[in-house]
Amino acid sequence: MDIMRVVGPLVCTQRHSGLMHNSLRVLRDRKGNLHVAVDTSGCRPGNWVFVVSGSAARYACNDPSVLTDLTVGGIIDIWNEKTGQQDLPT
Amino acid sequence: MDIMRVVGPLVCTQRHSGLMHNSLRVLRDRKGNLHVAVDTSGCRPGNWVFVVSGSAARYACNDPSVLTDLTVGGIIDIWNEKTGQQDLPT
Amino acid sequence: MDIMRVVGPLVCTQRHSGLMHNSLRVLRDRKGNLHVAVDTSGCRPGNWVFVVSGSAARYACNDPSVLTDLTVGGIIDIWNEKTGQQDLPT
Amino acid sequence: MDIMRVVGPLVCTQRHSGLMHNSLRVLRDRKGNLHVAVDTSGCRPGNWVFVVSGSAARYACNDPSVLTDLTVGGIIDIWNEKTGQQDLPT
Amino acid sequence: MDIMRVVGPLVCTQRHSGLMHNSLRVLRDRKGNLHVAVDTSGCRPGNWVFVVSGSAARYACNDPSVLTDLTVGGIIDIWNEKTGQQDLPT
Repeated sequence: MDIMRVVGPLVCTQRHSGLMHNSLRVLRDRKGNLHVAVDTSGCRPGNWVFVVSGSAARYACNDPSVLTDLTVGGIIDIWNEKTGQQDLPT
Repeated sequence: MDIMRVVGPLVCTQRHSGLMHNSLRVLRDRKGNLHVAVDTSGCRPGNWVFVVSGSAARYACNDPSVLTDLTVGGIIDIWNEKTGQQDLPT
Repeated sequence: MDIMRVVGPLVCTQRHSGLMHNSLRVLRDRKGNLHVAVDTSGCRPGNWVFVVSGSAARYACNDPSVLTDLTVGGIIDIWNEKTGQQDLPT
Repeated sequence: MDIMRVVGPLVCTQRHSGLMHNSLRVLRDRKGNLHVAVDTSGCRPGNWVFVVSGSAARYACNDPSVLTDLTVGGIIDIWNEKTGQQDLPT
Repeated sequence: MDIMRVVGPLVCTQRHSGLMHNSLRVLRDRKGNLHVAVDTSGCRPGNWVFVVSGSAARYACNDPSVLTDLTVGGIIDIWNEKTGQQDLPT
């Protein structure tokens, strides 16, 4: 899984019905590249998340026939981008 | 999923029967690399689209045995390439 | 799918039986990297082809248990490498 | 499979239920990029491990429906990062 | 499939039982990156091989539930690294 940051929602009036009613997010990886992912965890702009790719991304939606190759797997607590570590309270 | 721009159709007289009658598009990603995708959404040259890769690309066609690893998932509304955001009316 | 050019056949006396009697080709992508693909379309050195990767590559052979992750999907008509477009007669 | 080094655990209060109770690790590859993997082998910070990606990563957990695309496959004995070889006693 | 050169075996005392008794090899690609693959063809250090990735790598072992994403598919006869061609006797 990779670590990315949420940019915002993605609006597509004309999209494949296989995506069903899933919510789409634009994410940015650490190199600045943009990606589109299905979100089921309610992440918001600015959140650091980890994303699941490949066939596992389909299973991450309730229906494995959903047309996604990238799904948000979880929101990372207190991520420090510079150190690549979590600044958790001890 | 990745964000790409439609260049145009791809004509292949001699192609694998497993692609069936699906329409092919040449797409360009943000780094300038070219890709070939199956299109089921009727996208046109200049459109910004997001594409689904891997096994999900096969499910995006009505028949999951279609021979594709990249399928157009939807046309993005009002994409601003420079900002990487959508300029939607508010 | 990606666009590559056929370099030539690949001879491997000692190869996995799961490849069956499929013909192998060495291909070169636009960055100069070499790849090995199964060919079922009879492509020849110098041809521009598009290739299917991942699980779809297995379906491209008649038997989905064939051991390939890259299969030639079709021969591109009149490809212009420099423009990234097809110079089709109008 | 790729060779990576364990940085530490990853804490996500809000994560997808499909990951079940699997333990997550942050790993660093040889280029310095960070990845998130499921760990079933009890690896610790500083260990060199090899990781399994794609659909095989799901099978590496006891339940193939687990939502992972990267799972630790084993801990490498006495890895020498500079030479890319193992300094095993003879 | 990609073309790589065998560096040597990989010893992991603590490894996932899903790899069963398969032999592991460290391989080096043309860019110098290291990879770990399952070997079923008896390749030796210095051999040039082509490797199968993704779900096909699992099928390359007798049991498709084996935990691998990279398996040696065959040993290439008389590979000339510089020309990217085979110097076969005519």
